[in-house]
Amino acid sequence: MASFTIIGTGKMSGAIASVLTDGGSTVTTVAHGQTGTIDGGVVILAVPHPAVSDILAPYGDQLGGKIVVDITNPLNFETFDGLVVPDGSSFAAELAAKLPDSTVLKAFNTNFASTLASKKVGDVTTTVLIAGDDEAAKQTLASALDAGGVSAIDAGSLRRAHELEAIGFLQITLAAGEKIAWTGGFAIVR
Amino acid sequence: MASFTIIGTGKMSGAIASVLTDGGSTVTTVAHGQTGTIDGGVVILAVPHPAVSDILAPYGDQLGGKIVVDITNPLNFETFDGLVVPDGSSFAAELAAKLPDSTVLKAFNTNFASTLASKKVGDVTTTVLIAGDDEAAKQTLASALDAGGVSAIDAGSLRRAHELEAIGFLQITLAAGEKIAWTGGFAIVR
Repeated sequence: MASFTIIGTGKMSGAIASVLTDGGSTVTTVAHGQTGTIDGGVVILAVPHPAVSDILAPYGDQLGGKIVVDITNPLNFETFDGLVVPDGSSFAAELAAKLPDSTVLKAFNTNFASTLASKKVGDVTTTVLIAGDDEAAKQTLASALDAGGVSAIDAGSLRRAHELEAIGFLQITLAAGEKIAWTGGFAIVR
Repeated sequence: MASFTIIGTGKMSGAIASVLTDGGSTVTTVAHGQTGTIDGGVVILAVPHPAVSDILAPYGDQLGGKIVVDITNPLNFETFDGLVVPDGSSFAAELAAKLPDSTVLKAFNTNFASTLASKKVGDVTTTVLIAGDDEAAKQTLASALDAGGVSAIDAGSLRRAHELEAIGFLQITLAAGEKIAWTGGFAIVR
């Protein structure tokens, strides 16, 4: 069973930790301002996108050889009309370029925290979409999530992080516009 | 009640026509190779993306002043790893540039034909996401769909067609990869 370190202590961090611990994984949570030792083989960066660079400085050296999970939705908070990443790219791809010795996955950004905590979107089991270039790394995360009672789907290569970030962005705009609830959103029916 | 002309006679055409007629709308369907008079105030281009240009030549003059609905998922069929539109843009935005006298909407591209025909994604009522810059045009389409028994959500300006095309693309890759069924996919829980 994989061990996880979650950096960040917000709602997403708590919801992800509860799923993983329900599945029997070992989870350590650390505040992102706190510099310590990363024990987990899988490191989940559960912070808003502007805070990721704050993590890379103190922790960067420790992330080599590990699976690093990017959960961000890199919204442009000034315009709320797009993302801060270059057209056609993704925050995850940019992160992977900065961490050449890590295995970067994109996951959880299409899930609202409440639907991870409840493990349901409406009456449908919550599904985590995972994108990345390393099959074994994706399987490690997917197995831990399955054990914790949510579904996981391999969404393809890390290039698909672009589409996952588009989905996450649209879902946030729909909730912010009160078209859907923050407890609802995209459910995935197999 | 709005009247609709659907150009194209495939599965999507049939499924959209059945929802609209169930709701009491008048629907005329024409084959895309056939040149005739467009009666409807709303014209749905229910053809694969490479065929859209074939429609613009014979019908272009008749589309002025009308609501034109783009349903395409402009996949790159050679690579199956992206779309044929410029990064950050959308097929709908490109179409709108070619039809300056029409009101272009993006809709239906995030719906598999079978989920329109059944009006359900699993146990959840099918939702059509609509993007466009004209509020009245979006409301016209949404009202006709609501009357026909499916939900409709205003997904924002035509810029959001980029995200709708990303969702449609990912959904197709998941079904093609047998991660989801062609009768399943993204359901939207309010």
